[in-house]
Amino acid sequence: MEKRWSVLDALRHSRHDWLNKLQLIKGNLALNKLERVHEIIAEIVREMQHESKLTNLNANRFAEWLLTYNWEARHVVVSYEVLGDNGDLSAYDEALVTWCNAFLQQLEQQADASGENHLDVSIELEDGSVRLFFDYRGTIKDGDALATWLESHPPKAPVCCGEAAIHKEEMTVFLYITNG
Amino acid sequence: MEKRWSVLDALRHSRHDWLNKLQLIKGNLALNKLERVHEIIAEIVREMQHESKLTNLNANRFAEWLLTYNWEARHVVVSYEVLGDNGDLSAYDEALVTWCNAFLQQLEQQADASGENHLDVSIELEDGSVRLFFDYRGTIKDGDALATWLESHPPKAPVCCGEAAIHKEEMTVFLYITNG
Repeated sequence: MEKRWSVLDALRHSRHDWLNKLQLIKGNLALNKLERVHEIIAEIVREMQHESKLTNLNANRFAEWLLTYNWEARHVVVSYEVLGDNGDLSAYDEALVTWCNAFLQQLEQQADASGENHLDVSIELEDGSVRLFFDYRGTIKDGDALATWLESHPPKAPVCCGEAAIHKEEMTVFLYITNG
Repeated sequence: MEKRWSVLDALRHSRHDWLNKLQLIKGNLALNKLERVHEIIAEIVREMQHESKLTNLNANRFAEWLLTYNWEARHVVVSYEVLGDNGDLSAYDEALVTWCNAFLQQLEQQADASGENHLDVSIELEDGSVRLFFDYRGTIKDGDALATWLESHPPKAPVCCGEAAIHKEEMTVFLYITNG
């Protein structure tokens, strides 16, 4: 089960993140790099738009899981983006969070703490279809173990897992949702 | 009982607040008012220090109540500051949140929705003693009703309520904690 956080936890993490961003703005202001400040602000606004889109998908447990993933010390840094128009993932919330949580536990085991391990999750909404694309770059200690796990642990229907491509230091896998 | 919020609520409100602050920075940058941008950033950092101090008092329900008070539509805008070194209010958490919540319900009834009503809460920690000072400026429809309520609703010991000063559009009242 994914860890649940309190409102105070959320405000504390959010405060931390924002103060870091503010520090970045302040540093560039001090160097009079105004162009860079504008870029940083634009980047933050884009990030916040993705966060807002994620929370509007009505998959609250999944959204909370993704937004809070890096609040614990992990080997894998997870980022995400939401592409396309708003959809309603409420019916798949439990299937998504359960599978993603289990999948990340496997991935954490294969990631070397000393390396840089990054997973980017793209949530793609298009014409009523939903696709989650996982793009991992980082250590993979035992690719075969990951492949075996993926084959033997499909998500709960109607969420399906597409074929994974596992390489030395890169892996892609995607989920899709079958209609009806 | 005070309303409880979710992590996603917290992140949404926090995102809103921060995007407003960012907008303020952006606006002043566009006008090349760099001095003002520095002031705004310094003000945000000060605010965050108070927030951090508040959450470090170990009175989690009280802190959450205060931090989330204006997340609902209210007649009274509440702000706060924490003065002095860190203390541990965990033993008074329930007494504080229960009394403050009830007190604010009374105050909301006396505040006119069309007016500007502002309550500033100062949490003062000094030499092991704790004092909460409530400074209200705004409409008071019926000061006698407030006075009667305050007299007949003391907080739970060892939290005590000092004498209130109720005027036409201003009221001050304080709580203190008796030792032993």
